[in-house]
Amino acid sequence: MARHVIGIDLGGTHMQLGLVNATGQIVARERQLTHADECADAVLASIASGVESLAKGQGMATGDIEAIGIGAPGAIDLEGGVVLEAPNLRWSDFPLGRRLSERLDGRPVIVENDVNVAILGEQRLGAGRGSDDVLGVWVGTGIGGGIIIGGRLHRGAFGTAGEIGQTILFPGGAMGHRVFEDVCSRKSTVDRIVELMHSNRQSSLHDLCDGDTDRIDIRMVAKAYASGDELVKSLVDETARFIGISIANVLSVLSLSRVVLGGGMTEALGDPFVNGVADAMRAFVFPSSTASKIEVRPTELADNAGLLGAAMLALERADG
Amino acid sequence: MARHVIGIDLGGTHMQLGLVNATGQIVARERQLTHADECADAVLASIASGVESLAKGQGMATGDIEAIGIGAPGAIDLEGGVVLEAPNLRWSDFPLGRRLSERLDGRPVIVENDVNVAILGEQRLGAGRGSDDVLGVWVGTGIGGGIIIGGRLHRGAFGTAGEIGQTILFPGGAMGHRVFEDVCSRKSTVDRIVELMHSNRQSSLHDLCDGDTDRIDIRMVAKAYASGDELVKSLVDETARFIGISIANVLSVLSLSRVVLGGGMTEALGDPFVNGVADAMRAFVFPSSTASKIEVRPTELADNAGLLGAAMLALERADG
Repeated sequence: MARHVIGIDLGGTHMQLGLVNATGQIVARERQLTHADECADAVLASIASGVESLAKGQGMATGDIEAIGIGAPGAIDLEGGVVLEAPNLRWSDFPLGRRLSERLDGRPVIVENDVNVAILGEQRLGAGRGSDDVLGVWVGTGIGGGIIIGGRLHRGAFGTAGEIGQTILFPGGAMGHRVFEDVCSRKSTVDRIVELMHSNRQSSLHDLCDGDTDRIDIRMVAKAYASGDELVKSLVDETARFIGISIANVLSVLSLSRVVLGGGMTEALGDPFVNGVADAMRAFVFPSSTASKIEVRPTELADNAGLLGAAMLALERADG
Repeated sequence: MARHVIGIDLGGTHMQLGLVNATGQIVARERQLTHADECADAVLASIASGVESLAKGQGMATGDIEAIGIGAPGAIDLEGGVVLEAPNLRWSDFPLGRRLSERLDGRPVIVENDVNVAILGEQRLGAGRGSDDVLGVWVGTGIGGGIIIGGRLHRGAFGTAGEIGQTILFPGGAMGHRVFEDVCSRKSTVDRIVELMHSNRQSSLHDLCDGDTDRIDIRMVAKAYASGDELVKSLVDETARFIGISIANVLSVLSLSRVVLGGGMTEALGDPFVNGVADAMRAFVFPSSTASKIEVRPTELADNAGLLGAAMLALERADG
């Protein structure tokens, strides 16, 4: 029988589950509510029923699943499969791996940070293929990151590596305005545009939002950006430059050959934004002789990155 | 016969050579001119004669030396032992490893970047002992860095990793004032103090230098700092804070458990400076729960770090 694992991208409101074969193809998938507002057992039950229904749908028993990989939002103790801290799930020190394994006939369950598995997915099957040394940066509500060194996820001494979003971008900045994520996340980018609009700056967004700036989201911003709106273009381009600088700093220290950009803001703004990030990175990385050798690519797996990365982790753990 | 290697710290003006045994003790040492202003053969001859004389002095033949390790200032191709670019030595694409090996009865010669070997030395025998994940930062004329991950030097995809001195500290800064090294090196620190003195700022340095600000060096600054000079104290403390922030950024991304500070500025300013760097690092590193677990220590090997690190590299290569 062909090998199958299940990869799970566990979010605060929804989870995505996929039955994945050994070549990384999604054979079947489900999307369901996480029920994070209920007790942990409700979440466990939801995950377990999703796993069982995926297996059943393909005429398999739970015991036919080699392993289950989960990407969870928060700090993870990899060895024990413990979610140390996950505000979105209201969990702290929750032994997700063991508890889920007990519910699933003792099948092995591997738990990793959600951004880490997304970047592993891209490196194995998406925009990171062909490079063993990858920095992934996910620009969404916040900014997350992950690092692959020599083909393996780098977790570091405390298992917390990859937090590029928490690096200091403006050492002279006021609290709330000096961390990379404070300034360059999707949320901050939209908020900063709205603030400027409230200061009487002209923008086509005034029309696009029908005068209700609360309605402005990154898609509306992307529309204005694509149409050449001056305010939006200058602000987004500056943001891309700051993201490129933060990435250059990591590359100067680590010497990595590939950057993968993902997250809601990257997907909404598309190639001009990715190119802006790449140009700034190349202008600031050291040594400059490496700049042209570093590739910057947008996510290829998009919403499937987490699910597929979790599945790859499960497969590779099963291989020992 | 006990195992012996030779470690060499190759500088632009002088080189230090040490005959080192398997436990990392310096059995004998020499210091001699590099002759970088002459042709490469002159430098080679100088190194070779140093090696031979060290061996002879201990009643050994060159053939009794297991391997020679060299830390050289510049970009190195580790595989080929080639110095790709070393402005201080006036070399580019110079096959130092092969050429020196030919002169030394075919003994293996391992070439590495000088900052990398110094940090390896500290990790094996000095202030980095007990940790497998170390960031070393050398604050001198410039700012150099090196990274040990899982007990091994991290070189990265292009072999250029560790360049913390070249990261962007002030993304809004003017050219020449935005790179970490631009602002926080020993040279920049002294220059900035002198500039402020020329702008009529009071300082005990006016007396210490007898009115000749060209005479001010980091030792004089350290004297004024220790005596509580207000201008010097505020500038040095701010510099320590910026160094701590740059280090925190690397630690947030890499999750390392130890920081070793070296270089002329660290040695001159001593513990108050090291503590200032450590305090800032702890205030800015993410997640903050790791802050208290990260140790920051000044170099223990000081001038011997490069020589001993090069020797350790030679020993470990000989072990395969």
